[in-house]
Amino acid sequence: MAVNVALIGCGNVGQGFLSLLLEKKKDLEAKGIKINVVAVCDKIRGSAFDPDGLNIAKVLDLASKSDISAYPSVITNMDPFAVISKTNANVILEATWTDLRSGEPAFTHIKEALSFKKHVVTTNKGPILLYFKELMRIAEMNEVELRFEGVVLSGTPVFNLVRECLPESEIISFRGILNGTTNYILTRMEEGLSFEDALRKAQELGYAEADPTMDVEGWDAGAKALILANVLMGANLKLNDIECEGITSLKVEDVKGVLSRGKRYKLIAEGYKDGSVVKVSVKPQEVPLSDPLANILGTLNAITFSTDTVGDVTIVGKGAGGREAGYALFADLISLAKKLCKA
Amino acid sequence: MAVNVALIGCGNVGQGFLSLLLEKKKDLEAKGIKINVVAVCDKIRGSAFDPDGLNIAKVLDLASKSDISAYPSVITNMDPFAVISKTNANVILEATWTDLRSGEPAFTHIKEALSFKKHVVTTNKGPILLYFKELMRIAEMNEVELRFEGVVLSGTPVFNLVRECLPESEIISFRGILNGTTNYILTRMEEGLSFEDALRKAQELGYAEADPTMDVEGWDAGAKALILANVLMGANLKLNDIECEGITSLKVEDVKGVLSRGKRYKLIAEGYKDGSVVKVSVKPQEVPLSDPLANILGTLNAITFSTDTVGDVTIVGKGAGGREAGYALFADLISLAKKLCKA
Repeated sequence: MAVNVALIGCGNVGQGFLSLLLEKKKDLEAKGIKINVVAVCDKIRGSAFDPDGLNIAKVLDLASKSDISAYPSVITNMDPFAVISKTNANVILEATWTDLRSGEPAFTHIKEALSFKKHVVTTNKGPILLYFKELMRIAEMNEVELRFEGVVLSGTPVFNLVRECLPESEIISFRGILNGTTNYILTRMEEGLSFEDALRKAQELGYAEADPTMDVEGWDAGAKALILANVLMGANLKLNDIECEGITSLKVEDVKGVLSRGKRYKLIAEGYKDGSVVKVSVKPQEVPLSDPLANILGTLNAITFSTDTVGDVTIVGKGAGGREAGYALFADLISLAKKLCKA
Repeated sequence: MAVNVALIGCGNVGQGFLSLLLEKKKDLEAKGIKINVVAVCDKIRGSAFDPDGLNIAKVLDLASKSDISAYPSVITNMDPFAVISKTNANVILEATWTDLRSGEPAFTHIKEALSFKKHVVTTNKGPILLYFKELMRIAEMNEVELRFEGVVLSGTPVFNLVRECLPESEIISFRGILNGTTNYILTRMEEGLSFEDALRKAQELGYAEADPTMDVEGWDAGAKALILANVLMGANLKLNDIECEGITSLKVEDVKGVLSRGKRYKLIAEGYKDGSVVKVSVKPQEVPLSDPLANILGTLNAITFSTDTVGDVTIVGKGAGGREAGYALFADLISLAKKLCKA
């Protein structure tokens, strides 16, 4: 079975994915895995559809000029719904922008694609945060898969790690640094920068958004922690069920003070079972330097899973970046493609 | 297809595996995965074979008394070769003792089992260190699998992490703490204990063997690093191709001295590509405290993989223990069983 892919959203993440696919295409084909990108559409950058497969290098070049619709001799002006319902794609990659309040437009794209019996891979936190159970039910009903490795820790394996490498393990609790922006700010504050200066530095380097509220008030980490609890611990929580405190009230004296006592302030996201109830919190904590999470500096992210089988397992890696998130799409797609090419 | 398992070697690791299987048997059966342990044999503890499956709790009880042959109404006095060739097992778990010089008796058990078209799962470093390519060729020829997650970092995912979660990634280099005994000794030396006292403490706690040479002279870490290079980086190295230095010449003053300069001595195993050649070394290194490996304390192990796709990914977990190594066998077996039960 050929794997025909449509990409909805061709910003940093989508382009990161396309670059990786271009680099690895030959190796994949040598292994019998043929992936055709048949459609790409982006609200700003345009769209192109060729049922026989687009030239990836050409799409990348046009995307960088926000002019995908200039792709010659193919169908253009496709919106996401046309891409989902009117193309020969059997896998939809959803990489549009994230909205943690509504989950849109990604939620509708994903629901629509699953209903059309297309597999979906996404890096979009919104729909998984708000509608995980509903989407999994729709996927199951339509006998297709929904994968979302990239929503936590970007391309660093988290969900695939637990599913593929820790089979039958119960996740008793987790503890992690899930937001790179705040971790970068805390690292710079240890060097003496004020919160405001460290934030400005993060914005200059592209680590923080113009409106950094979701990051610095802990909601980005909170959303990810919630997703971990719902997906890996069987919880059914909403954002207002969790305790969430950001780093905006921390002073440079606080941060340097605990460091001089052999500890570090870290924005720690936690999930644990309290009887049959799963509790989730995000708040700054004083972490002793002997804790594996204490040395996660700058934009790095990390999660420690406590299991009933093999004790604690910690994974550390980049939590953001176009190539990294693109790799999350790529890795999920390859796992899927291996199954589809066998079928 | 039913999964019939024979276990060769029923010491700490084998018993760790059986305990985990006993705990998880019901959950597995609810998912349609039925695993029968049809044979167990151990040089000291005896043997039992029932083609319909042994009672695991009973085997565990008898193993603890070194009296597996007392299992009632079944065939006993089976040696490993009878277990491989004369039972209905389709998966052989090899968990006998490790010999890094000859790889025996595990090498012959594994070769024999693969030749009889039986899948093999092992935690035994010897055969993988010495005969990886040969064994993989025999497995391929006989269309069966050879899995060995447990040979590095015990049950903490390493090979499965790279294969399942980092598809199409090239491992450009790795760097890790692969031996818990030496890491424990270095941690205690930072607290002021001499090498000899720290070693004695490790022996008291069961972290070091009576003859600790392989650990403290770096050969255990060296063997693991070599396996990583050969399996994950396509190298074809032997133990005498690598640079190997242990921790026996480190003085407590050295260890405390670097700590006072914001660094830590760690026994670091490394593999990297020098052109098309893979180089492997194990030696004590001064690691800055900002390095994720610096805070790996006590018996913990860790590996950082540098990839061409998603940057650096670090995994941290226990590197030893009967339950942990037993989980390595269990996790590999479950992956296999999922395939076999579908077939």
